[in-house]
Amino acid sequence: MLSISQRSLQMPASPIRKLVPFAEKAAQKGIHIHYLNIGQPDIRTPAPILDAIRQAKIDILAYSHSAGNLDYREKLTKYYHKLGIEVEPHEIIVTTGGSEAIWFALMACLDPGDEVLIPEPFYANYLGFSQMAGVQIKPVTSAIENGFALPNKQAFVQAIGPRTKAVLICNPNNPTGHVYSRKELQVLEEICLEHQLFLLSDEAYREFCYEDTHYSALQLESIRDRVVLLDTISKRYSACGARIGALISHHQPLIAAALKYAQARLSPPTLEQIGAAAALDLPAEYFVATRKEYDRRRQTLVRLLNEIPGVFCPMPKGAFYAMAKLPVKDAEDFCQWLLESFSYKGQTVMLAPGAGFYATPGKGKQEVRIAYVLEEKALISAITCLKKALEVYPDKG
Amino acid sequence: MLSISQRSLQMPASPIRKLVPFAEKAAQKGIHIHYLNIGQPDIRTPAPILDAIRQAKIDILAYSHSAGNLDYREKLTKYYHKLGIEVEPHEIIVTTGGSEAIWFALMACLDPGDEVLIPEPFYANYLGFSQMAGVQIKPVTSAIENGFALPNKQAFVQAIGPRTKAVLICNPNNPTGHVYSRKELQVLEEICLEHQLFLLSDEAYREFCYEDTHYSALQLESIRDRVVLLDTISKRYSACGARIGALISHHQPLIAAALKYAQARLSPPTLEQIGAAAALDLPAEYFVATRKEYDRRRQTLVRLLNEIPGVFCPMPKGAFYAMAKLPVKDAEDFCQWLLESFSYKGQTVMLAPGAGFYATPGKGKQEVRIAYVLEEKALISAITCLKKALEVYPDKG
Repeated sequence: MLSISQRSLQMPASPIRKLVPFAEKAAQKGIHIHYLNIGQPDIRTPAPILDAIRQAKIDILAYSHSAGNLDYREKLTKYYHKLGIEVEPHEIIVTTGGSEAIWFALMACLDPGDEVLIPEPFYANYLGFSQMAGVQIKPVTSAIENGFALPNKQAFVQAIGPRTKAVLICNPNNPTGHVYSRKELQVLEEICLEHQLFLLSDEAYREFCYEDTHYSALQLESIRDRVVLLDTISKRYSACGARIGALISHHQPLIAAALKYAQARLSPPTLEQIGAAAALDLPAEYFVATRKEYDRRRQTLVRLLNEIPGVFCPMPKGAFYAMAKLPVKDAEDFCQWLLESFSYKGQTVMLAPGAGFYATPGKGKQEVRIAYVLEEKALISAITCLKKALEVYPDKG
Repeated sequence: MLSISQRSLQMPASPIRKLVPFAEKAAQKGIHIHYLNIGQPDIRTPAPILDAIRQAKIDILAYSHSAGNLDYREKLTKYYHKLGIEVEPHEIIVTTGGSEAIWFALMACLDPGDEVLIPEPFYANYLGFSQMAGVQIKPVTSAIENGFALPNKQAFVQAIGPRTKAVLICNPNNPTGHVYSRKELQVLEEICLEHQLFLLSDEAYREFCYEDTHYSALQLESIRDRVVLLDTISKRYSACGARIGALISHHQPLIAAALKYAQARLSPPTLEQIGAAAALDLPAEYFVATRKEYDRRRQTLVRLLNEIPGVFCPMPKGAFYAMAKLPVKDAEDFCQWLLESFSYKGQTVMLAPGAGFYATPGKGKQEVRIAYVLEEKALISAITCLKKALEVYPDKG
């Protein structure tokens, strides 16, 4: 049998999805699994999105513009304007999910062998896309003890080398739930200004900030042409399967580069752009209600977690994830054990092992990421399972 | 302003789409443009596809499985079975368009610096994806004089070096319309067997063969685990905007690699997989009727083209493209001139310059690709425009 490429062998499996075979086996045994491992919300996709798709007058399901339909991009500029972000339609590339925006940004800013600084823990697929793009992640470690706040300036500066080209943040953060303050963003602004770096800012969870208002990287005036905003409708509107995202930048050569990548893959999905355009007409109350729902879950989750002996979970301020430290030796073994060998009242829980969110070997071994994407009752059952599991798990940390 | 990556600067612009700004200007002047530059069919998407999407009972537009919905993959195996191709659901990765299948295949089989042999002219975006993947295309030139038949074995063998890992074909061919005979495929089979190469076979236009039946690379028994089939519903069902394709292989490590790439980008669009599954229930007559329509256009197009003094167009046997040699010095200049400086009865025509389909510098300078994606009457008007244009074009070749 011919060998596949080395880069494929080195490609990391998604830590969020690699336990799926064990979950499938547990489900076959009739065990009810509470899926807290993946950011797939249980909140309904707003009807106007689906209705717009259903009612679209379409005879030929044709390619859209490679950069996305102009009318959708025009409408997007108004959405951003309301947030205090001024962009033009030609500064937007509609992407196939936020995933593609991440990938285009890495390809556009970095060459193979170049480095990107990322506060860790970070969204695990940054590792996959970096591997695909042949770029190196230089992690800058944040600490669970202080709620995963931005590491100090010196930690970033020390990590910068001659091949460092960019900083990548996720704000609000997946997996930590940290929301970067204006002050923290200004630190990043200084770093990017002083060291000639792009700032890639993944703001998929912008609307889900529970304590403070969100401040976008595109509002950092002194580096306005160094910022690349990565966006998606997936979480905002509970529309993960739509695969509609965006890459936004004032840097025209960068947009021209992203457009070439976009042209190679022809177009983002056509129908979902119609749905995404309809989403922009949703009343502001939609986010008020959704935010309230997630906030309630957040409070419940974090309270219950911290009541479990040996568990520590700082209060996340945004997104719908929490990182928790568990009293186990190896959280990945534990998560697999939860699916393979445990059930409580016919139920178990699926979590994402923390190590997959770190680039530094050995980090996060006792941590798990928990997505609070289930309604409160199911969430309580899930955390009860976790509590019972920790009582009997043999390999304590 | 910070510099973008070198690879972005080197990324080729799509030759099919780079004339778009000139077309936009012509359209603004009120000129009617016959778009023969892009493979966007005018044939209606079959109603059952759109109806299935419209009627799907969906409350949450959730991620699908990263490899695509299992029920769709199961149904696909029956489609392939009818074509004499035996595959299992776990040998299929549903991709976001055929584009992503091409990209995943290159990433899975080749490392940066590795080489892929491709008969030229070839689908222009192979160049873009190769650039993104950091792999080198070694073109093996086919000739318009013999209808772009497969170059002989020696031409391939001479191009093979220590870093050659794969051959990539498009069958039926875009842009030439050539359909590889069983004999030609057996030559490729020998080459791949003797030189340890993967055979990537893009069969997007499988159903559009007008003279002979199609023979799939996956039917080459002696290299069954070296073949990677690249597929898409875009052309087959006039559903380019659906962005549903597939990568298929019996090579399990390769499928495992493709799945890791698929997991990084989470999932292909959810709704369109429902439409694509519905498409598989279309009666066989659908393709009979569609093929008949394209065949009529093909005959008309090629007859009219060869009636124009100095124009030569071999009869394509499949897909819906023809490559024609024009009596001009530089077809790209001519195509731009058609949009910028010419109109006949308020109309002009947009063509894809041939050079963009070649990797060898200087090749295809007098050629254009013509997509016969317009109904016969519009096609006749378009070719009349072309004829009139060639009568007055100053820069004859």
